[in-house]
Amino acid sequence: MTSRREFTKSSVAAAAALGAAAVASPLEAMASLGSRRREQLLADTGRLNGWLTQLAEFGKNPQGGVSRVAYSDYDKQGREMVQALMRDAGLKVEIDLAGNIIGRRAGSQSSARPIAFGSHIDSVPEGGNFDGTVGSLASIEAVKTMQERGITTRHPLELIVFQNEEGGTVGSRALLGELKPSDLDLGTKSGKTIRSGIAFIGGNPDRIDQVVRKPGELAAYVELHIEQGGSLHADGIDIGVVEGIVGIGWWDVTIDGFANHAGTTAMNNRRDAMLAFARFTDMVNRVITSEPGRQVGTVGKVFAFPGAPNVVPGKIICSLEIRELDDARIASFFERIKQESGKIAAATGTTFGFQNTHDSKSALTDPRIQKAIAEVASGLKLTSRPMPSGAGHDAQHMAHLCPSGMIFIPSIDGISHAPKEFSRPADIGNGANVLLRTLLALDEQMGA
Amino acid sequence: MTSRREFTKSSVAAAAALGAAAVASPLEAMASLGSRRREQLLADTGRLNGWLTQLAEFGKNPQGGVSRVAYSDYDKQGREMVQALMRDAGLKVEIDLAGNIIGRRAGSQSSARPIAFGSHIDSVPEGGNFDGTVGSLASIEAVKTMQERGITTRHPLELIVFQNEEGGTVGSRALLGELKPSDLDLGTKSGKTIRSGIAFIGGNPDRIDQVVRKPGELAAYVELHIEQGGSLHADGIDIGVVEGIVGIGWWDVTIDGFANHAGTTAMNNRRDAMLAFARFTDMVNRVITSEPGRQVGTVGKVFAFPGAPNVVPGKIICSLEIRELDDARIASFFERIKQESGKIAAATGTTFGFQNTHDSKSALTDPRIQKAIAEVASGLKLTSRPMPSGAGHDAQHMAHLCPSGMIFIPSIDGISHAPKEFSRPADIGNGANVLLRTLLALDEQMGA
Repeated sequence: MTSRREFTKSSVAAAAALGAAAVASPLEAMASLGSRRREQLLADTGRLNGWLTQLAEFGKNPQGGVSRVAYSDYDKQGREMVQALMRDAGLKVEIDLAGNIIGRRAGSQSSARPIAFGSHIDSVPEGGNFDGTVGSLASIEAVKTMQERGITTRHPLELIVFQNEEGGTVGSRALLGELKPSDLDLGTKSGKTIRSGIAFIGGNPDRIDQVVRKPGELAAYVELHIEQGGSLHADGIDIGVVEGIVGIGWWDVTIDGFANHAGTTAMNNRRDAMLAFARFTDMVNRVITSEPGRQVGTVGKVFAFPGAPNVVPGKIICSLEIRELDDARIASFFERIKQESGKIAAATGTTFGFQNTHDSKSALTDPRIQKAIAEVASGLKLTSRPMPSGAGHDAQHMAHLCPSGMIFIPSIDGISHAPKEFSRPADIGNGANVLLRTLLALDEQMGA
Repeated sequence: MTSRREFTKSSVAAAAALGAAAVASPLEAMASLGSRRREQLLADTGRLNGWLTQLAEFGKNPQGGVSRVAYSDYDKQGREMVQALMRDAGLKVEIDLAGNIIGRRAGSQSSARPIAFGSHIDSVPEGGNFDGTVGSLASIEAVKTMQERGITTRHPLELIVFQNEEGGTVGSRALLGELKPSDLDLGTKSGKTIRSGIAFIGGNPDRIDQVVRKPGELAAYVELHIEQGGSLHADGIDIGVVEGIVGIGWWDVTIDGFANHAGTTAMNNRRDAMLAFARFTDMVNRVITSEPGRQVGTVGKVFAFPGAPNVVPGKIICSLEIRELDDARIASFFERIKQESGKIAAATGTTFGFQNTHDSKSALTDPRIQKAIAEVASGLKLTSRPMPSGAGHDAQHMAHLCPSGMIFIPSIDGISHAPKEFSRPADIGNGANVLLRTLLALDEQMGA
């Protein structure tokens, strides 16, 4: 009886032998042979879920979930575990200048451009065990399975575990050349600046401009992720085929009224900024839900001044966020909201000011990759449906470098960025299988 | 030509001589002589406005107004000025055990109970120059005028400048025996506790229980004050005849929803505490204004959790305040608000909790004093109207000790507790004349 470790070693040897044999065959024969083998291929989902449990130890919180913020000691420890798994799966591992973990595997066609895939393993403070980690470890599992089954893809493979996704998709923005020198001086939840954080995890912030990838350098990018919303779980759908990552508009909204004594100022004599805010928030909800679609609008933050129970508020500062796949619709919803605010201002004797504080354009996924994911899911007898990603992901930046796609699995009750974030082992297994087979399908379908 | 100071001295002598003479006359004749003289009596409103300007120096702010919080050095300096004016007006001045400034003047009928009147001179931080000071200095002016005109009232007079009105009507509550030992340990805006503040201004916190007055000990209490609301100014009315000080109910309202990712949580899947709060605030406004009357309802404070632009708020804590002259109506408005909240909770998937944090019963003024004020105003060719006081005053506690009344003068634009608080010199003069003549009218009308 062999131990698991020994089994792994022998399977690596077997795979290497098989790989060598395959190279000797004519290309068409190999592809055909590969196709049949690939159609049956399944990841070892027990192993994958075991890895997830192990990784959850780094930054584990007593209330459940993890605090493994980028550039923390726990982040570094988690990255070491991930690198060990990657090496064991036969990947050649390096830390790029931006601090991303890159694992490379040669393809049979040395001139082909790499197919990239991956996710991240950093978390928000008091986050969950599935956001990012599912996609990162399932990517390793996909390679491990290919290694064990002796499959060599035509394209080289490049597994990327992006650094600091939660703090603003820092690692993927670096690949796009979108990290400005001033961004490096920003503080992070770890207490370090991005600059010192990158150095801490093995990157080189002084040479970060050299990490930039050229558009077209990669054949494709695929990312598996938990939905973080509740729609797949609520409707009992196995797989979400992501159509794109939504655009995001952020505004600071200032409402000016007049602060006055709440006892002596008659109701019809007030210029109550709180009342105007209340009508604004209700109106945002009404406008956003007045049209079919998956757009969302949120008022998440509010400060009232002076903020005493016995003073009519004279000023409100609040946030407005709109997310939607079609950037033009974000602008049009905002215009309607601004217009309706004018009516509220007139009725309440207040004035509204809007300051755009952040804009993130939507990033559409590649229709060929969407199609491949849907077909693979169907082949696995899994239900799937197209959907936008309401959250930001590294894939939204990768989509500017190469055809990209995302696979979603259900989040129970849609809970995310919280200790109660949970995806079922079976759903994680489904995701890993869809990722594995999508990579193999793209390897056949995408141009070299 | 005599200086003003000399004139004052000689008028004091004249008044003393007249007083002595009056005691010798038959009581009926004196009252009749007094009545005629009293009907013509007017305060020196130029002098009064001059005093207001002088007092405004203590704690003067560069942006206008004053910060003369109770127990501060500025408060002490202001109190010294006031005591000097009181002594100059012939009052026998003492600081009572609670730190209130008491000025006494004998009446012609030694067995008669005193008629009390006054206000306060402490301010809120960054407050205005008229709240409290108008009533305090006009009270001194009334006595000064009587002194100059040689008028001795039948009842003894007791001018009270209450300490720390703005920090919770501390001085008047002490007279009622409503200051608990634990209240003395509360901090104040001056940095001192109430206990050390009282000692600082010359009271004796250890013997404060001995300052309590017995109900019926005083014949009446009258207070002149600025409206602090805008109704008299808006409608061009000279004098407000206060019907009572409104009751106040305070609640902390907690709205529980479910915090979730604003990008991934579909609109129909949210339990958005902010949306529920918005509908609550609008509903409070609707319920309070749905019935005729002067009741007010205010949501002045709000905290959203977690309070990020990209998170659907899971919890809101806000304040609710209702003020109204009829305490039963406060309870009935609250019941309607609670009931309507149930509907909002059901529609938004949230729950509402209400915690009553403070209740202050309304205090009605005495109809005889209301009538006297209205008649005096009419005699001075001033317009007047009955109205509630939406703000709390020392008079609300005095109303539990003796028949009490309040006279309001207009606040320009209703601004109060702010540097821009303003009352016109002419309105202040009107108020002083109404106070003076009301005191004289009550001296004739009220039982000894």
